[in-house]
Amino acid sequence: MRYALLLGYDGTLFSGWQRQGKGERTVQGELERAASELFGTPTRVTASGRTDAGVHALGQVCHFDAETALPAEKLCLMLNAFLPPDIRVYKSCIAPDGFDCTRGAKRKTYCYRVYTAAAEIPVLDRYAVRILGVPCLQTMQRAADMVVGKHDFKAFCAAGSSAKTTVRTVFSVEIRVRAEKLYTMSEIYVTGNGFLYNMVRILAGELIAVGLGKSTAGLEAALASGNRTCLSKTMPAKGLMLETVEYDAPLFGVQEG
Amino acid sequence: MRYALLLGYDGTLFSGWQRQGKGERTVQGELERAASELFGTPTRVTASGRTDAGVHALGQVCHFDAETALPAEKLCLMLNAFLPPDIRVYKSCIAPDGFDCTRGAKRKTYCYRVYTAAAEIPVLDRYAVRILGVPCLQTMQRAADMVVGKHDFKAFCAAGSSAKTTVRTVFSVEIRVRAEKLYTMSEIYVTGNGFLYNMVRILAGELIAVGLGKSTAGLEAALASGNRTCLSKTMPAKGLMLETVEYDAPLFGVQEG
Repeated sequence: MRYALLLGYDGTLFSGWQRQGKGERTVQGELERAASELFGTPTRVTASGRTDAGVHALGQVCHFDAETALPAEKLCLMLNAFLPPDIRVYKSCIAPDGFDCTRGAKRKTYCYRVYTAAAEIPVLDRYAVRILGVPCLQTMQRAADMVVGKHDFKAFCAAGSSAKTTVRTVFSVEIRVRAEKLYTMSEIYVTGNGFLYNMVRILAGELIAVGLGKSTAGLEAALASGNRTCLSKTMPAKGLMLETVEYDAPLFGVQEG
Repeated sequence: MRYALLLGYDGTLFSGWQRQGKGERTVQGELERAASELFGTPTRVTASGRTDAGVHALGQVCHFDAETALPAEKLCLMLNAFLPPDIRVYKSCIAPDGFDCTRGAKRKTYCYRVYTAAAEIPVLDRYAVRILGVPCLQTMQRAADMVVGKHDFKAFCAAGSSAKTTVRTVFSVEIRVRAEKLYTMSEIYVTGNGFLYNMVRILAGELIAVGLGKSTAGLEAALASGNRTCLSKTMPAKGLMLETVEYDAPLFGVQEG
C-alpha cells in the first residue's frame, strides 16, 4: 500500500532532503530511519522534490510504500515519535491509485524572504536574509510579471543540473513588502509547475537587484539567451521556504494548499 | 559617558537576560563580556527590563557607562564583533542627560504568539506555541479590552515577584488572527507602562482560554480580587517577544518604535 505524508522541516541543521553518506544529517535519512523503525523493515521515502541544504519546508509532500495494519491517519503521529523536532509530519493518508508525489505534483509554491534593517535581527535571521536597501515593490512586481508564463529558464539554472528540459511554467509571482518599525520584510512567492536547480534563489536575487535599481535588461536577456551570467548571484538557502505542493485532487482535505 | 543601545536576541539558548553563575548563558553576561573586551575594562550593562529564560527580544534597549574615544554610532558594529549571532546590536548613541533605560521606559510592547495546526510546525515553533483550537478573535478582543487601563494586576503576577506595587497601566491590547493554508496564527500585542513578573504570559493564557470558550468571569474576578487562581496557567516562554520599548523622546531616530 502507498501512503502520502504532509510534513514540514526547519532546514537549518540539515544537509538538504537527499539521503547522503554517513554523518550527513538529511530529511530523507531521518524520515527513512523513522519509517523503518516504525514498520520494522527498510522503507524508502520519496519527496515531491528535493530541497537543498539549509532550505526550509512549510508544506512538503512525500510518499512511501509499506505493508501495515496501522491506521493510515495515525501514521503521522507515530512517525513523529521517531523523528527529531525539526521535522514534523502533519497528516498521513492512503495515497490515491497510481499516486506518485514527484510526478503528480502540479503546482509548487516557494517563498523567498529578505529583510532590510540596521543590522541582522536574530529573530528574523533564521528564515530570511538581510539585504541593504529597501527594494521597490512596484518595480519588483513589474519585473516578476515578465517571468510569468512558459519560458526556457536555462539562465536560472545552476551548473550541475541534470534536468532534461529547462522549460518551465511559472503560474504567478507575488511580491509582498511590509514595513515594520525596526525592519522591512520583502517576500517573493513563486508558483510554478516545477523549478530547476536553484531557480527560485536565482530569480529572487535578480528581482531584488531590480527592486534596488538594476535595469530589467539582464532579466530580459536571460530569458531570451539562456545565459546565466546576465543574472545576479544565487541567494542563500536559509531565505527559501517550500510553502505548498498541489496535486490534481486534494490529498489530505482542504488544508494542504 | 552613558551610551544607549537598541538590540535584539533570540532567547532560545539563553537563561534569560540576567547575569547568573558560571555556566549559565545570559544576554547580560554576553553583552557585558563583549563591552568589557571592547573597552578593556569591566563594564556593566543595564536593560529596560529583564526577560526570562527563553523569551525573545526584537527591540530591547540597554545602557552602559564607558570612557571611550570610539564614535558612539559605531559602537553597535564593534560590539557585534564580540557577540554571538543570537544577539545583535542595531544602533548605539550617546544617551540623553540623566537617561536611565529602566526608569525612563514609558511604554513597552510585548507580543505573544500561538498557532493552531494539525501538528507542531517546525518553522513556526521557535517563536510561537501550538495550541488546540482556533481562538475567536472578537471574543479575545472583547476580553482584552477589559484589562486596558490602570488596574491592580496582582492576579497576573507569578509568585516570587519583588514588585513594590502591582498596579500597572495597560495602554492597549491588540489581537490579530491570520488564517493561512496550513495553520492559523494568533498574535496578542500588549502595550503598557510596565509589566509584572510573567504578567504577559499569564494574560495571554487567559485571553486564549477565553477565545477558546472560557467565560470572562475568571478574568473579571482576577481583576477584582487579585487572586491568581482565577486565571489560566502561564504560557511557555518561547511564544513571548519583547517588541519595542519607548521613551519620552526618540533615542535612535524614528525606528525604535
